[in-house]
Amino acid sequence: MKKFNIQAPNKAIEPLLIDKINNLTKPKGSLGTLEELALQIGLIQQTLSPALHHPQNIIFCSDHGIADEGVSVSPKEVTWQQTIHFTHGGGGVNFLTHQHGFSLKIVDAGVDYDLPYERGIINMKVRKGTRNFLHESAMTEDEMNLCIERGAEIVKLCETEGSNVLSFGEMGIGNTSPSSIWMHLFCKIPLAQCVGAGSGLSTQGVNRKLQILQKAVNNYNGDRSAIDIIRYFGGYEMVMAIGAMLQAAEDHVIILVDGFIMTACMLAVMQLYPSVKDYAIFGHCGDESGHKLLLDTMGAKPLLHLGLRLGEGTGAICAYPIVDSAVRMINEMESFKKASITKYF
Amino acid sequence: MKKFNIQAPNKAIEPLLIDKINNLTKPKGSLGTLEELALQIGLIQQTLSPALHHPQNIIFCSDHGIADEGVSVSPKEVTWQQTIHFTHGGGGVNFLTHQHGFSLKIVDAGVDYDLPYERGIINMKVRKGTRNFLHESAMTEDEMNLCIERGAEIVKLCETEGSNVLSFGEMGIGNTSPSSIWMHLFCKIPLAQCVGAGSGLSTQGVNRKLQILQKAVNNYNGDRSAIDIIRYFGGYEMVMAIGAMLQAAEDHVIILVDGFIMTACMLAVMQLYPSVKDYAIFGHCGDESGHKLLLDTMGAKPLLHLGLRLGEGTGAICAYPIVDSAVRMINEMESFKKASITKYF
Repeated sequence: MKKFNIQAPNKAIEPLLIDKINNLTKPKGSLGTLEELALQIGLIQQTLSPALHHPQNIIFCSDHGIADEGVSVSPKEVTWQQTIHFTHGGGGVNFLTHQHGFSLKIVDAGVDYDLPYERGIINMKVRKGTRNFLHESAMTEDEMNLCIERGAEIVKLCETEGSNVLSFGEMGIGNTSPSSIWMHLFCKIPLAQCVGAGSGLSTQGVNRKLQILQKAVNNYNGDRSAIDIIRYFGGYEMVMAIGAMLQAAEDHVIILVDGFIMTACMLAVMQLYPSVKDYAIFGHCGDESGHKLLLDTMGAKPLLHLGLRLGEGTGAICAYPIVDSAVRMINEMESFKKASITKYF
Repeated sequence: MKKFNIQAPNKAIEPLLIDKINNLTKPKGSLGTLEELALQIGLIQQTLSPALHHPQNIIFCSDHGIADEGVSVSPKEVTWQQTIHFTHGGGGVNFLTHQHGFSLKIVDAGVDYDLPYERGIINMKVRKGTRNFLHESAMTEDEMNLCIERGAEIVKLCETEGSNVLSFGEMGIGNTSPSSIWMHLFCKIPLAQCVGAGSGLSTQGVNRKLQILQKAVNNYNGDRSAIDIIRYFGGYEMVMAIGAMLQAAEDHVIILVDGFIMTACMLAVMQLYPSVKDYAIFGHCGDESGHKLLLDTMGAKPLLHLGLRLGEGTGAICAYPIVDSAVRMINEMESFKKASITKYF
């Protein structure tokens, strides 16, 4: 697998950042999370005057062999239908990218359909869907490496376009299943607490899904290394997101983390390079059961709790204005000294 | 007191709104709070295509007689200093109004200082600060009526300017004290659970504040009607905000509720006209101890939890993009039928 050079941000600037934030015209700490974000972003960018440039949302789309087992309430065809739909501008992600000035990249990582690339979908298809991990590894080592490289490549492209803040989303019917298994295996949390309703399974459906996923975990006979678990159960869209997150962290690009699936990808990333977390802002805690538990286990504090469970990057983009507020706070608020206001506590 | 004609929104349109929201290209309910907001705003505006026009934030500023008892860690002069500071554009509220396209009105409801009105502060001063409610009623009946009328007048002005969504904020050293007492008396919650650190009191300071406020409540010998409690303990900025909220609800203007103090004002409003709540969107749950308990008691579900405790309308304005997202969702997302996507659940 491609190697990345990922370091935690240099902390030398931290006292200066804290001093600047504490001297803005407000009681110390009274802007709560905005103050924490300003500190994090200042550290990532190594400056007292951070800035956000050209935010983009990248949706990685792919199909999953495990979907053949009926682990999702949604039919597989929804993956390609929605992938095309995003190009029309009427999807859930589109009104949010419009609202917050995000560019949108739609990436075919492995959709089981011949997509109309002339509509602007980026063709990085590895294969028409992964294999069914109930019976065999979802992808080969070569395919995994390709996904990591292509995810990194997309981020490099965004950087040449001027972006220093990116959100990643996904579209892939069945992809809560690998996410739940990663959570189970990486966090050592019982599988039942990791499995949820996805796009809308009944209780009976969730139980069936749990049985199938338990069987898949029992069948797994790999070496239990992080890389092997990622490869065996992962989706192409998920491993491409992992490559993207790794490249972003290497280049000090802010990563906006979306819902359950993208949080599971960040979890996988952290098994390989723990410092990536310093570059991540967790957008929201979604409605998929297990997401809150996963975030808590990772020590992640999401910005929003809006009961979203759509994916596509929607939760990350919804949280963007708060990130923007933090940056504006540290740049636009005056200091007590400059404003001639009695410093209060 | 001025009478208002406040009715709950007509529910006849509700099934049509729900049908429209459920047929957007997403699993039913998967946009969580955005879907609830779209329904609420559709009901307020009585339309399937709601719109937000000219958002404004109004900061009511005033001083409190009770501040003489040392119930706040901040000196009283901060009220007038910050009131002027908002006109310079470097305050906490300013970067948020810039970011989200809000106009800002700064209203002198009763600041204990001769303010420079030529800088754009609206002069609605009732008196230079309320009386000290430890010993006597904070305001007279005439003063209370004046506050209600002036708050209503400001909202009417905003409406002529084209606004249909307003947030209200406050600046007034000492104003967590009347808020805590209102919470105690209206919700029957022990005073100790209603009193917090304000802008930064120590534990010792909070205990002293609690003793003073308990003494004030013991000294109170009014008729215990909502109106009398509002008058006896309220601040001019708070009662003006009450008048503003009442006028907004009468005219079907969306009310964005800010932090602890504005939530206490909404609580007071609901004692007079319970239907006002239908027009209210609660922006955030702040860091003041008691705010969460108050919101829970009111059955209010705030949009954000960012540990803010600055006031000025900051929490309400921070939440605005989510309100905007909800409106964009119902207007900009396509239906399954139009997009030719298999309906999923």
